[in-house]
Amino acid sequence: MRPVTIVLALPVADAERSLRFYRDGLHLANPEIDERMLAFELPNLSLFLIERSEYTKYTERAGVPLVGAVPPGACIISCAIGSQEEVDDILKRAQAAGGSIPGPAEDHDGSYMGYFSDPDGHVWELVFNARTQAAAG
Amino acid sequence: MRPVTIVLALPVADAERSLRFYRDGLHLANPEIDERMLAFELPNLSLFLIERSEYTKYTERAGVPLVGAVPPGACIISCAIGSQEEVDDILKRAQAAGGSIPGPAEDHDGSYMGYFSDPDGHVWELVFNARTQAAAG
Repeated sequence: MRPVTIVLALPVADAERSLRFYRDGLHLANPEIDERMLAFELPNLSLFLIERSEYTKYTERAGVPLVGAVPPGACIISCAIGSQEEVDDILKRAQAAGGSIPGPAEDHDGSYMGYFSDPDGHVWELVFNARTQAAAG
Repeated sequence: MRPVTIVLALPVADAERSLRFYRDGLHLANPEIDERMLAFELPNLSLFLIERSEYTKYTERAGVPLVGAVPPGACIISCAIGSQEEVDDILKRAQAAGGSIPGPAEDHDGSYMGYFSDPDGHVWELVFNARTQAAAG
């Protein structure tokens, strides 16, 4: 199996709400916007957020109709972040924009780590350490 | 928010089983193997498959302990594939390796599309069309 390229698709309740959260709240750059979906080209991740009515077309084709709600934490999108200040800033923005955070970022095993959930419960992890700092240039 | 790089983490029941499925069954290249997790560097996706006992450490930090099972279809990993034959071949391999498929690949809106679920219910979509063929060179 040699995929040419890969996209991650996640279900959302309301693409407009997701747009406000990610574009206006988090300042995530350059979303492509369709009526019922958003696409973000991020470093090492193409992320499609698709409204459930459209999303279930794909899961039904896959033979696994998605009936109930997806529990928060079903996947974790983990981001290397270039500075401790940026981790703190993202958490503040996420909370102000309607996401939820369990508390301030903390040190774990030599990394500075913060978490937020978007309005649909999708979990993001923010990691800053010497390696991510070096990668950020 | 300007992530330096991103990793997608998914929970699995048994990293050894996932290794057999992805490495031995699907021939997904060069897994990095830790005791309770697998990492695959794929085109435009870093994928970590983490055993639940370890995975829940992260969801608990995120304030969203993952209690029950994740329903199949919670996310979709969609892959552009370079040929129709490869789509068919991947579906056969996935089924033989313990995954499940809803049936053979089919044409949808000008694309040849197939689906499989891995032994944990994570859904993969395989897409071949003129664009993915061009991208495959």
